[in-house]
Amino acid sequence: MIYFNNDYAEGCHEAVLNALVRTNAEQTPGYGEDCHCAAAAAKIRKLCGREDVAVHFLVGGTQTNLTVIDAALRPHQGALCAVSGHINVHETGAVEATGHKVLPLPSADGKITAKQVEDYVLAHRADGAFEHIVQPKLVYISNPTEMGTLYNLAELESLSETCHKLGLYLFMDGARLGYGLAASGNDVTMQDIARLCDVFYIGGTKVGLLFGEAVVIGNPALAEDFRYLIKQHGGMLAKGRLLGVQFDAILEDDLYFKIAAHADKLADTMRETFDELQVPYLVPGITNQIFPILPDTVLEELAKQFCFTEMERVDETHRAVRFCTSWATREENVALLCDVLRSLMNR
Amino acid sequence: MIYFNNDYAEGCHEAVLNALVRTNAEQTPGYGEDCHCAAAAAKIRKLCGREDVAVHFLVGGTQTNLTVIDAALRPHQGALCAVSGHINVHETGAVEATGHKVLPLPSADGKITAKQVEDYVLAHRADGAFEHIVQPKLVYISNPTEMGTLYNLAELESLSETCHKLGLYLFMDGARLGYGLAASGNDVTMQDIARLCDVFYIGGTKVGLLFGEAVVIGNPALAEDFRYLIKQHGGMLAKGRLLGVQFDAILEDDLYFKIAAHADKLADTMRETFDELQVPYLVPGITNQIFPILPDTVLEELAKQFCFTEMERVDETHRAVRFCTSWATREENVALLCDVLRSLMNR
Amino acid sequence: MIYFNNDYAEGCHEAVLNALVRTNAEQTPGYGEDCHCAAAAAKIRKLCGREDVAVHFLVGGTQTNLTVIDAALRPHQGALCAVSGHINVHETGAVEATGHKVLPLPSADGKITAKQVEDYVLAHRADGAFEHIVQPKLVYISNPTEMGTLYNLAELESLSETCHKLGLYLFMDGARLGYGLAASGNDVTMQDIARLCDVFYIGGTKVGLLFGEAVVIGNPALAEDFRYLIKQHGGMLAKGRLLGVQFDAILEDDLYFKIAAHADKLADTMRETFDELQVPYLVPGITNQIFPILPDTVLEELAKQFCFTEMERVDETHRAVRFCTSWATREENVALLCDVLRSLMNR
Amino acid sequence: MIYFNNDYAEGCHEAVLNALVRTNAEQTPGYGEDCHCAAAAAKIRKLCGREDVAVHFLVGGTQTNLTVIDAALRPHQGALCAVSGHINVHETGAVEATGHKVLPLPSADGKITAKQVEDYVLAHRADGAFEHIVQPKLVYISNPTEMGTLYNLAELESLSETCHKLGLYLFMDGARLGYGLAASGNDVTMQDIARLCDVFYIGGTKVGLLFGEAVVIGNPALAEDFRYLIKQHGGMLAKGRLLGVQFDAILEDDLYFKIAAHADKLADTMRETFDELQVPYLVPGITNQIFPILPDTVLEELAKQFCFTEMERVDETHRAVRFCTSWATREENVALLCDVLRSLMNR
Repeated sequence: MIYFNNDYAEGCHEAVLNALVRTNAEQTPGYGEDCHCAAAAAKIRKLCGREDVAVHFLVGGTQTNLTVIDAALRPHQGALCAVSGHINVHETGAVEATGHKVLPLPSADGKITAKQVEDYVLAHRADGAFEHIVQPKLVYISNPTEMGTLYNLAELESLSETCHKLGLYLFMDGARLGYGLAASGNDVTMQDIARLCDVFYIGGTKVGLLFGEAVVIGNPALAEDFRYLIKQHGGMLAKGRLLGVQFDAILEDDLYFKIAAHADKLADTMRETFDELQVPYLVPGITNQIFPILPDTVLEELAKQFCFTEMERVDETHRAVRFCTSWATREENVALLCDVLRSLMNR
Repeated sequence: MIYFNNDYAEGCHEAVLNALVRTNAEQTPGYGEDCHCAAAAAKIRKLCGREDVAVHFLVGGTQTNLTVIDAALRPHQGALCAVSGHINVHETGAVEATGHKVLPLPSADGKITAKQVEDYVLAHRADGAFEHIVQPKLVYISNPTEMGTLYNLAELESLSETCHKLGLYLFMDGARLGYGLAASGNDVTMQDIARLCDVFYIGGTKVGLLFGEAVVIGNPALAEDFRYLIKQHGGMLAKGRLLGVQFDAILEDDLYFKIAAHADKLADTMRETFDELQVPYLVPGITNQIFPILPDTVLEELAKQFCFTEMERVDETHRAVRFCTSWATREENVALLCDVLRSLMNR
Repeated sequence: MIYFNNDYAEGCHEAVLNALVRTNAEQTPGYGEDCHCAAAAAKIRKLCGREDVAVHFLVGGTQTNLTVIDAALRPHQGALCAVSGHINVHETGAVEATGHKVLPLPSADGKITAKQVEDYVLAHRADGAFEHIVQPKLVYISNPTEMGTLYNLAELESLSETCHKLGLYLFMDGARLGYGLAASGNDVTMQDIARLCDVFYIGGTKVGLLFGEAVVIGNPALAEDFRYLIKQHGGMLAKGRLLGVQFDAILEDDLYFKIAAHADKLADTMRETFDELQVPYLVPGITNQIFPILPDTVLEELAKQFCFTEMERVDETHRAVRFCTSWATREENVALLCDVLRSLMNR
Repeated sequence: MIYFNNDYAEGCHEAVLNALVRTNAEQTPGYGEDCHCAAAAAKIRKLCGREDVAVHFLVGGTQTNLTVIDAALRPHQGALCAVSGHINVHETGAVEATGHKVLPLPSADGKITAKQVEDYVLAHRADGAFEHIVQPKLVYISNPTEMGTLYNLAELESLSETCHKLGLYLFMDGARLGYGLAASGNDVTMQDIARLCDVFYIGGTKVGLLFGEAVVIGNPALAEDFRYLIKQHGGMLAKGRLLGVQFDAILEDDLYFKIAAHADKLADTMRETFDELQVPYLVPGITNQIFPILPDTVLEELAKQFCFTEMERVDETHRAVRFCTSWATREENVALLCDVLRSLMNR
């Protein structure tokens, strides 16, 4: 079987593994207060073009989302996000478990607009019973989104401006950030994100690490006492250096971006094939996730050789599915998939 | 000004006030362990036709909703309800503050169906990543709903059957239960509710009391240690007898139902006038809330004499509003409203 | 039976009852936004000698404690209090249910000192692993305490100064505040409290009202969005005016202080008798609670005529108990108790 | 510098590292549903002598403690533990953040007794206001404790019997379990623990793994839906196999116990030296933690070559400190420490 069902099926990139092996016998202070975390944080500050951001390393995405949101909100405040946002659908109510309501906004492609945010906030403030309604205080976006789509710079600037005008925080879940930044067609840089978001994270788990997400906090109001919150929510690794070692390795010589570009390029190859075969998409995209709508008969055949993810039934004979590439995807497997697709679709 | 904007503008019914005055100097044990609470609970058990239900008295609706739901759910479980459900929109995230996600189902009229519940639960269980999604465990309904609509017996039986088949609890918010049970056209009795719901409450705040909601728990799994939860959530009144005294008075000689019928009858009078004037409704109903769609010009004139609640803009020249009658509404005020309406609409 | 077991056995003072009856038929806006709440708040601001404080009315003490503390703290912060503090022992973990740890300090008499607070906070900040430990951020005191003791002005000033020097909030639970302020020997005024505490409340439930606690917030950081938190925690009464009407009545012509002084004076009478009989106290005091240590044989006889509260066994033949007077206690009952005591002790 | 300050200063045992390297390129399902987790769980079930226990792998101790306790308790219930228990002092209020009060029991050596538990529970049940007090429902113990002490089999059987007689759960934090089981003088086996505790965990982070704790749930009431809770609390690793691979490796050929015995033996060597030098202990012990009380002058000299942990000042010239050995401690470093100690103490 060849796996295209997600981007976390393998361990980590060789360079990361080597770094773990190389540093294994070192004795370091615990809880992230070691030289490797410091070195990785320095690289991240440089990438962000800001020396004043706080950098913290957490283990996984759900943990990061709940910790950041809990750190940012008072009890009566909630997080706006796309209805398909990860915090709204796939984290077992982790945000609610910290006491905060997720406030979903309609979205077809996983993105939300500055206008949606502004309309929601102004309607809340104009409501005669506003104190009976959760106060929107933070906007959660994923980039790329759960649907593989990307915000462009204009959209991001508009969201940021709107949030700050209204006194809301902008938080970007970058679990797949590498695949977004490396996509051909993307016009957003890490510096842009560090400038426009109050807090965001650079995903490692899906982009070459064993695990790890690097939180970057640009707004000092969110940075205060953040380590207490990491510890309280069980996110503080005793051997915190494991996160520093991994990020330090993957950020060396732009490796993070190179391996993400590899995945995006292979996804582009798949997209070319789908386009050539006139396969429609549930949502079009340019990153490492592809959501084609295919005939049940074709999917049945494909499933004999390839793993992919079921998304939804589109009509009586077609379903939307997801194919994922990753830093570890092999070119020949993509070529094989394309060949099989062509042969199945052209029958 | 004449107030039709809600059903909690006045104090309490004279019989309730008299009972409070009459018992004021008594010395009783605190925290609801007094003879008045016991007497009121006995009346409620009789009304329910079940001696085995637990009865508890709380102060208000939000407090009751959050306490019942927190008592019923484990941390990973959530409450299904109509998207317009009170817990979803007008309780400042009180349920989320106890850690639980509210799971909204689409609804035009404030009601949800057994089929919606079943589809949702089965889809959850069939999901490959079901442990990443909040587990639906309780169905919250209001009867009457926030839109003034009522469940009929068949709908309620179907919901109850579905919930119990699937292992979910059925919880009815009866903040306006009196107005529902007393409505002409209603085919549900208190006994039906006590038989079909795992837990429900009989609203007092909006039906003749100063404050107070009587929780009836038919499912022993939900009754265990319930008083701990009342106390923890700040709902245990030191002078708990105030709740017993009031419920005891309002349940004497069916007073609760008589005063609710009074409000419904006056609402029927209003409805007849709206019908006669061919005024459409946002949602049709038979209880004490009416949601007519009226021209802005008419509303502007009405607002000079009458208080009502804004619901939403329907088109460029019309808005939906809410008129409420209550146990305290005076016949002559309704007659005046109808006269004014006729004169404004027939211009 | 004559009840000395608590100060909430009766309903409310006649003046309060009359005000409720008089205003019962009025139509007012809900949720505390009525003229009675405004009038009561104005009286409280005047009593406090500060026009800039925010005043909110809640129903009961546990509700008030949990709402204030939840409003004040970030998730990793906790509340310091005496080990016998109400929030630590008698609120079913209400504060913990909002996510915050109560940090108990040793105390024999229910009071804590500025030195204890300072030592705790400095030790926390000096700890090498301080981020692994809950951060103390608020000091909760009761005045009078659960042991009936009172802070004097010097102690209160010292606590306030220490808290503010260290960046902590000072919160006073005044569930029995009236009995404290009216005690002969007390040197603290309402203005002192309003000046020294960031937030405190004036207890009504135990001092003449049916129910109600008036929260006074002097620190603007704690006042922001406070009504959202009241609503979220189920403390916002639909007929909020009931709280305004009651406080407005009890604060008219210093009635609150007069009825509290009545209770304190009767307690002084009891204390004179205990002193005369050389009865020791668990903790000495000057307010409406008395904690004598009496022989089991005497208690057995007393219990035939009088209700009191068991505190703890002191030795094989003696127990400490609590006698409470209140605004409603009758002079002849106190006289009777003293007579019976004398006759039992002098046998 | 030679590090004796904790048992998590290095990475992982070579066998574990090799297993991670060997399996790195494998493609496996995510979230712990892979063959390595299955294999490790099978080994653990065998070690426990019970095929019916549920086994789950989490990343760290605080995460595990909060997840297990949250899974076990209803909102009004709390966890009894020693006042020095890790959940009470060093997890930033993680248990309270899930809404539950930690109920500390006095303890000089980190252990609590069956009698303490029974007395506490019976006193709670006998209290007239028991519903105003958090209900004790779970007993949390660490073995070894934070003070390095161990429960013997009789104590553990007594605790287990008492808990089950009273309807409480017994939960053992085994963050250092290996060092306990391997200690000479220990009379408890893994099978005993699996038989006596409702839930416990086998610590990996401090005993040879990079990270990882294996939760073993013997009581089916605690096992239901446990994976939902792991996910909700951010403890579900996308590449869950990392935990399975590591535990599978460390449990092969009793490696876990062998490396723990190595640490205990080196600690025994230290203890022999301390005994020989007549150094007293804060608390005596037999596992990998030693708490000697040493003169300030000696500690000052030691600190030039060795890292250790400050515990507390004992008198004006002596402090208690902690020395830790681990699976990674080298014999020659212990020998050096002993030599230096002898020379400093015999001056």
